[in-house]
Amino acid sequence: MYQGETTLNIGLIHHPVVNKRAEVIGSAVTNLDIHDIARTARTYGVGHYFISTPFEDQQQLVKQLLDHWQTGHGATYNPARREALGIVRIATSLHEMTDALTDYYQREPLLVATSARVQDNTIGYRTLGDKIHMGEPVLLLFGTAHGLAPEILEQTDATLPPIVGGTQYNHLSVRSASSIIIDRLLGS
Amino acid sequence: MYQGETTLNIGLIHHPVVNKRAEVIGSAVTNLDIHDIARTARTYGVGHYFISTPFEDQQQLVKQLLDHWQTGHGATYNPARREALGIVRIATSLHEMTDALTDYYQREPLLVATSARVQDNTIGYRTLGDKIHMGEPVLLLFGTAHGLAPEILEQTDATLPPIVGGTQYNHLSVRSASSIIIDRLLGS
Repeated sequence: MYQGETTLNIGLIHHPVVNKRAEVIGSAVTNLDIHDIARTARTYGVGHYFISTPFEDQQQLVKQLLDHWQTGHGATYNPARREALGIVRIATSLHEMTDALTDYYQREPLLVATSARVQDNTIGYRTLGDKIHMGEPVLLLFGTAHGLAPEILEQTDATLPPIVGGTQYNHLSVRSASSIIIDRLLGS
Repeated sequence: MYQGETTLNIGLIHHPVVNKRAEVIGSAVTNLDIHDIARTARTYGVGHYFISTPFEDQQQLVKQLLDHWQTGHGATYNPARREALGIVRIATSLHEMTDALTDYYQREPLLVATSARVQDNTIGYRTLGDKIHMGEPVLLLFGTAHGLAPEILEQTDATLPPIVGGTQYNHLSVRSASSIIIDRLLGS
């Protein structure tokens, strides 16, 4: 536990996600998804930020990046970045993330999805924020590409409502969407 | 005016900004700052998103990127991206941005700065959001690198409070900070 750490945890899923034709695919890890989301997550007290991909070469890529900023040249060049990336974990699946968190909290986390479309089992931002403030462990899932695959949504306990910005346009990057959602849950 | 367009406008300033030693510098334009912030801005109804740099080669870079996505291959490949980048404008200075907006609205915009540090002339998120909902033109300024230079802050009418995330860590990317701030002002 670090100072200000909450029971909110996040997972960025690279497989299974959907493409624009709603086909299930695996996406490539993006450097800036790791940096930007880690910085926001660390600012708001997120416990763990999982990068989830079943592809070994992609896991290696993340590992190299983390090594550079945590023990390599990056660690001395930018200690603040080291701190942000300190909460990043590599996971191969949703199962592995929930196992790690169940081990950490000694109880199962609430699994919450995010989606750009309205889903059946909605939970409000305030309700979820209150649960976190009460100390309930939560794993909040974000999908890369065009979003989480149905098989992930089916395994979650609830889904946050889509972010609506007042126009008919709704194409936020996962970096922007996750920042907005974390602020809505934990921002004062 | 497009459907859902508000009177909020934003400017991403590349000069004058400060580095980590508080020296005034000019920063390089970053591809993803343009894409990510344009997507958030267009989602929430931002009128214009200015990329401000006095450096001609940097302006050329932005122009080429906009051309690719608005009239080149990118426009047909991803029409949604075209729409987001449709609100992006190139500017050489704060003066040029305010001139363009004064021309567009036939009145001067309120100049509001953002900062990771508390400034003297604070305006609350709700107060500023209300002004925008009432139709007052606003130009909200974001600094790249380590933030807006003092000479920019001195020219603004007000500054939004820093984003505080509940920990002592506060190193948001400008992409994340701008998304959070726009959501706080215009999100429902």
